[in-house]
Amino acid sequence: MMILSTYIQSNKKYIEEILKTYIPVNEGYEQVVYDAMGYSLMAGGKRLRPMILLEVYKLFAQDLRPIKGFIAAVEMIHTYSLIHDDLPAMDNDVLRRGLPTCHIKYGEDMAILAGDGLLTMAFEVMIEAILEFDLGRPGILAMSCLGEKSGTRGMVGGQVVDIINEGKSIDIETVNYIHSHKTAALIEASFMMGGYLGGASDEVAKTLEQIGHNVGMAFQIQDDLLDVLSTEEELGKPINSDHKNAKQTYIDLKGVEGSQKEIHSYLDKSDALVETLPVENTTFISSLIEFIRTRDN
Amino acid sequence: MMILSTYIQSNKKYIEEILKTYIPVNEGYEQVVYDAMGYSLMAGGKRLRPMILLEVYKLFAQDLRPIKGFIAAVEMIHTYSLIHDDLPAMDNDVLRRGLPTCHIKYGEDMAILAGDGLLTMAFEVMIEAILEFDLGRPGILAMSCLGEKSGTRGMVGGQVVDIINEGKSIDIETVNYIHSHKTAALIEASFMMGGYLGGASDEVAKTLEQIGHNVGMAFQIQDDLLDVLSTEEELGKPINSDHKNAKQTYIDLKGVEGSQKEIHSYLDKSDALVETLPVENTTFISSLIEFIRTRDN
Repeated sequence: MMILSTYIQSNKKYIEEILKTYIPVNEGYEQVVYDAMGYSLMAGGKRLRPMILLEVYKLFAQDLRPIKGFIAAVEMIHTYSLIHDDLPAMDNDVLRRGLPTCHIKYGEDMAILAGDGLLTMAFEVMIEAILEFDLGRPGILAMSCLGEKSGTRGMVGGQVVDIINEGKSIDIETVNYIHSHKTAALIEASFMMGGYLGGASDEVAKTLEQIGHNVGMAFQIQDDLLDVLSTEEELGKPINSDHKNAKQTYIDLKGVEGSQKEIHSYLDKSDALVETLPVENTTFISSLIEFIRTRDN
Repeated sequence: MMILSTYIQSNKKYIEEILKTYIPVNEGYEQVVYDAMGYSLMAGGKRLRPMILLEVYKLFAQDLRPIKGFIAAVEMIHTYSLIHDDLPAMDNDVLRRGLPTCHIKYGEDMAILAGDGLLTMAFEVMIEAILEFDLGRPGILAMSCLGEKSGTRGMVGGQVVDIINEGKSIDIETVNYIHSHKTAALIEASFMMGGYLGGASDEVAKTLEQIGHNVGMAFQIQDDLLDVLSTEEELGKPINSDHKNAKQTYIDLKGVEGSQKEIHSYLDKSDALVETLPVENTTFISSLIEFIRTRDN
């Protein structure tokens, strides 16, 4: 079976070329905000979310032109959330992917505006694609997924609950709520968007959502484990950041072994759901699941 | 001729009833962010932008059900921009419409997230309306206007240029750029959205955009004048805020009389453009223009 790093190798550059086309250069008075947006958008990372969208889409359709705006949009939303999460009033992080965070590099005011700019631009580029390629209902449904999963019913809601529980002792239900909204929601959206854009039915989109949910939950617990077990060099960002911010994690409640068991349980559920998809080649999703089982960065 | 206050009297409550329906109560873990969003969204104001959308729409169509999401969206975008503008890292304002600003009331972290939540929700509710009422291209074009005019090519871009020029001596072109993007853009969007949703042609939408531009430019210069000439009681917010933030205004460059002359010039252009609209009753737009000529709060 192809391993995920092979997919990353072949897709990361393609995705980053797409992202680059959406950030204007020499635009005029407001260029500095495009610089700040581009700085964070192009700062690297595995590009997992747009890659999921792309590879899931390819299970159902071939023509990649109509989905470029959506590929960009999901990474813009992810990036805006990182910029705002890193702000002094939020997690107050100075390092992200081995680089100074957006507000350290461009100032707090510009980081707020760069986040607002990326969030708005995500919808702008999806709308442009819908109009240009006359995508109709599948395009609108894909955009709808991203809106719902990134707003207060999704990612923003998760961040809210994360923030208000800093320094508090919380139960496993609250931790699961945070993981499910702050992290899994955007991964669910990526799976669903690939499906809808490729012409998948509502029923298949629902299965893709569930796969995304299980993958996302496992991904976040693994992330918390790495935060405790890794070194700063391996991660490219400060370790033990959750405890620095007085956040109680899954690991605190379930222990290392208990958490590892949960990861495998979520991923086994994902594997079973993948079996039910009406497509032939699910290698990418299986590679992604396998990657999360064994990831170390 | 009906005066604007009559329109405000008959529309404000209708608009605020619509806004209220979009803010959940007793939602669960993340309720506090809905409280913060609702606090700022329901804090009053003249509701000019959604009122423009509503009244322009009524020039072309009757059924109000499909536009409720758009009426809410334009006010959500306006409100999110006020919340983020008021933040300590931006204009650092503690009072807005006579009430503590969102970050004073709910904390800086929650104010950032409430802004992000409102910005995302604006698109969510437009998308819902497009799907529910099968609005097709006119709905997508209306949403596209709001995206373009509120993002980096519009309002966010204007805020960026405003911020980076604090404490600097700037020329009239830069002030015009700031006014045109930070203020006029969203008023242009309100005019265009009303037109597109009502079924107006691209040509008519273009005229509506120009009316919105001239009205918006006049509105902002009048706002700057009031900031210098009013008392805090009359305005319901601190006066002389531009100079407090070391921002050079139109008034600094053109003087009070020169600024008043410009206001009338923009409004005369608006009046002339209104004449060219292919509709019979343009009383609302004329009342709006007359209101800006003479407003004192």
